[in-house]
Amino acid sequence: MPDSEGHPSAGEMTLSAVLAALADPLRRRVVRELASAPDGTARTCASFALPVSKATVTHHFRTLREAGLIRQVDRGNSRMAALRRTDIETCFPGLLALVTAETPAP
Amino acid sequence: MPDSEGHPSAGEMTLSAVLAALADPLRRRVVRELASAPDGTARTCASFALPVSKATVTHHFRTLREAGLIRQVDRGNSRMAALRRTDIETCFPGLLALVTAETPAP
Repeated sequence: MPDSEGHPSAGEMTLSAVLAALADPLRRRVVRELASAPDGTARTCASFALPVSKATVTHHFRTLREAGLIRQVDRGNSRMAALRRTDIETCFPGLLALVTAETPAP
Repeated sequence: MPDSEGHPSAGEMTLSAVLAALADPLRRRVVRELASAPDGTARTCASFALPVSKATVTHHFRTLREAGLIRQVDRGNSRMAALRRTDIETCFPGLLALVTAETPAP
């Protein structure tokens, strides 16, 4: 069962939810930037400067969190997002490489 | 531009459309079965015995075709589907391995 924040355990992650989350180019951008950063990097949602409304940003991060791709934690007044790199690589080897290899549309 | 049958060229395939197509478990089942068969295998849609209506089967195959994952051709009175293995491997290396590695739900 996902925890109270909506994070599934590694065993609960499904390829359906993960692929649906990654079908969106803005969500892939978040995952790509986190995957390209040093392991353990945590960033605020705002730091990604997604070109959409705050409500849509919230929706995108919830989708990533509920798929198991990111972990969100509160640090002081900020909500930080970190990639669940080990869980993703363990459950779906090769998936992160596929996302980071993409040349984003200009 | 996709051809008259809705097949995109390899260069027109996008990760967004491919991942959205593969987010569905029945569409992954079609791709997984074709990927596990000898290269060049072509099968009718009906041969997959998907547990959904004929209209939904048609929708699933159109989604796979328009994403560039399969090629559909008419042979006599039958419409056959074949995996675009080389195009997929060239554009998105590792993707097919990810799909074939999945243990399908019972």
